[in-house]
Amino acid sequence: MTLMKSWVTSANTPDTPFPLNNLPYGVFSVGDEDARCGVAIGDMILDMAALETAELIHLDDDAAFDLPFWNDVMELGPDIWAKLRARLHEMLAEGSADQAAIEPYLVPLADARLHMPLMVSEYTDFYAGRQHAQNMGAILRGSPDLPANWLHIPVGYNGRASSVVVSGTDIHRPNGQSKAPDADVPSFGPSKRLDIELEMGAIVGTSCEFGTPITVDQADAMIFGYVLLNDWSARDIQGWEYLPLGPFQGKAFGTSISPWIVTAAALDPFRTATPAREKELLPYLDSTIDGLFDIELEVLMQPEGAAKATSLSKTNYSRMYYSAAEQLCHHASGGCGMNSGDLLGSGTISGPDKSEYGSLMELSWAGRDPFTLDTGETRTFIEDNDTLILRGGAKGDGYQIGFGTCEGTIRPAVKFPT
Amino acid sequence: MTLMKSWVTSANTPDTPFPLNNLPYGVFSVGDEDARCGVAIGDMILDMAALETAELIHLDDDAAFDLPFWNDVMELGPDIWAKLRARLHEMLAEGSADQAAIEPYLVPLADARLHMPLMVSEYTDFYAGRQHAQNMGAILRGSPDLPANWLHIPVGYNGRASSVVVSGTDIHRPNGQSKAPDADVPSFGPSKRLDIELEMGAIVGTSCEFGTPITVDQADAMIFGYVLLNDWSARDIQGWEYLPLGPFQGKAFGTSISPWIVTAAALDPFRTATPAREKELLPYLDSTIDGLFDIELEVLMQPEGAAKATSLSKTNYSRMYYSAAEQLCHHASGGCGMNSGDLLGSGTISGPDKSEYGSLMELSWAGRDPFTLDTGETRTFIEDNDTLILRGGAKGDGYQIGFGTCEGTIRPAVKFPT
Repeated sequence: MTLMKSWVTSANTPDTPFPLNNLPYGVFSVGDEDARCGVAIGDMILDMAALETAELIHLDDDAAFDLPFWNDVMELGPDIWAKLRARLHEMLAEGSADQAAIEPYLVPLADARLHMPLMVSEYTDFYAGRQHAQNMGAILRGSPDLPANWLHIPVGYNGRASSVVVSGTDIHRPNGQSKAPDADVPSFGPSKRLDIELEMGAIVGTSCEFGTPITVDQADAMIFGYVLLNDWSARDIQGWEYLPLGPFQGKAFGTSISPWIVTAAALDPFRTATPAREKELLPYLDSTIDGLFDIELEVLMQPEGAAKATSLSKTNYSRMYYSAAEQLCHHASGGCGMNSGDLLGSGTISGPDKSEYGSLMELSWAGRDPFTLDTGETRTFIEDNDTLILRGGAKGDGYQIGFGTCEGTIRPAVKFPT
Repeated sequence: MTLMKSWVTSANTPDTPFPLNNLPYGVFSVGDEDARCGVAIGDMILDMAALETAELIHLDDDAAFDLPFWNDVMELGPDIWAKLRARLHEMLAEGSADQAAIEPYLVPLADARLHMPLMVSEYTDFYAGRQHAQNMGAILRGSPDLPANWLHIPVGYNGRASSVVVSGTDIHRPNGQSKAPDADVPSFGPSKRLDIELEMGAIVGTSCEFGTPITVDQADAMIFGYVLLNDWSARDIQGWEYLPLGPFQGKAFGTSISPWIVTAAALDPFRTATPAREKELLPYLDSTIDGLFDIELEVLMQPEGAAKATSLSKTNYSRMYYSAAEQLCHHASGGCGMNSGDLLGSGTISGPDKSEYGSLMELSWAGRDPFTLDTGETRTFIEDNDTLILRGGAKGDGYQIGFGTCEGTIRPAVKFPT
């Protein structure tokens, strides 16, 4: 696949994350205006609500774009998604007859504030990166052996939709219960082991009803798009609470996503197969599709006052053992209804080498091996006012499908009310 | 507290679940009509949407009752809840000047179909019954010792809102992965160990924002009301999947709730304290309120064709170690936003004696001790077409605050798609 040229010339440079090949969906506002749907193209945003009002685009009898979320478009299903994408390509392609009509509806990205691109219905987080699972086993349970079910089940747990926020939202260091190894009783206070998890988020576009399982191929067709996702984690809170019912408050104080939903259609040229199976999966997880994507990912940290961020690791989404489609199929396999707006976190993405680890827990090996930032400071976990940044993109021939960044700054813990 | 008399005479009998003292909120329809808000009184339902149209009740500038859920009322907060309850008492009390005006808006309960009384935002299930936790430890881990955190944390995990259904909804036996103890590899198919969990559900009425923790007293004031809740559980699926991240598909195929939200106000005379603490709770869980309620509970099973249901156990909500308010406070303690419409399952309620156990796992001790139904049939877990029924009520002086029933029939597993 090569670059598709646009009359928006900033979309034709090899380093823009938003060429015509991409067309990611977001929600934006300028100044005091209402937030509404927009599409990124080069260094501009196409104002979809204004285009709809001007009758230059029309999806449905109801307004689809003059809303602060893409859920209504998502619910219309894959045929409409394809029509919308085709119409956007037509309008924005070099030589388009629509150029003069469309041009007034471009807003500079630099002037816009970006909001959550969707209303998250429910949020599920998986544990589908093999290196991460092995590292966490070694750190927490003294052995890199995978849990007995891991090679058979895309292991996941339900997270908290109310804690999902858009990139740029400050996160307060959570208060919580933890127990030091040498303490008799737990204590309550700000987490001392605050971490990130580098993940991709898959956004469910169409629903499957309660009681109605789906195949992996059907699940793949239900996925509207992907975002970068940082599943902020308080390791000390998590460590004390997670037996026997899993992570809870250690994961409930913030999950950041990148502001642009990159569609499955834009990522289609970058599909890759899941890795060879060490144990054959059960037939309900069979599929005919390549469910992963070749997406380069990077984790960076920028302490307060630093001129630039330090790169901590680089890896690739194709490192995952299970695809989002396999996860979604498993999620619905017992009859659980899956809805438009559901968000599935991939699980932490770590490659085999330390330079590819996707969490500070792994990078500092539970705090035993501090790492050094470009400023000369060292870290094991996150300190107050540190900013953590995820970046990602799929590299084509002379273009890239970028995600923007997914970043957040950790602010001091709030005082607990009395 | 004694019976408050109503001109709806069926509300004055000692065995009605719905005296004037109760006034639970539900959603109903008759025939092909749209579902709308109603209040149960004796053997009738007061049609709140029709009352609103007739301008006999008015809460807000927007219609609050011509909707198939109570969420809009819940969001208005405790002052409005109290005003609504006072107005309902005034309208329905014996000797009310409103009787003639109100009477046309009563619909026989027997003619109505009951729907979900709320839109569930997110669903969390706790593990706050001590006897149940000890029994499960003994069965699953060979020791009744509580998990290390259990006496300090109201342990919980996030469940799946999309699987919450109203009483009367059929549940299909879930397909899922499990591994027999003597098998080398897991298999996929219908659960063989299908169970119930007797719980109460607390409904969060008002929200606390992301990043804003609350005290237990604040949490208690946020709770709109309570329902009976059956957290259907597939023990074989759960047993294979739950390490290390907790229950997932073993709990995602159905959670049934009773159709009437019994308000916290109606239950107020039945408040009881949580039991003496074996270990002092951390100060963030301090409160000045009695957070539990004296509510008698019963589990019954009715196999297909049986004339009546067999009582399997009887216990009381006051058996819990943690209150819903303590659970809600803990849930928000790290900054997790809690929203109107969130549903909190209490955890399985089991008393110290076998006659008080709230799950079949405990009643049959993981299948080792079959129990006998009134029909002469025996059971360990649920068979296809068995109906499971929960009942509950708080007993006052000559009246009761009833919940109606929470029931569901297990239908055969669906065929997995290919």
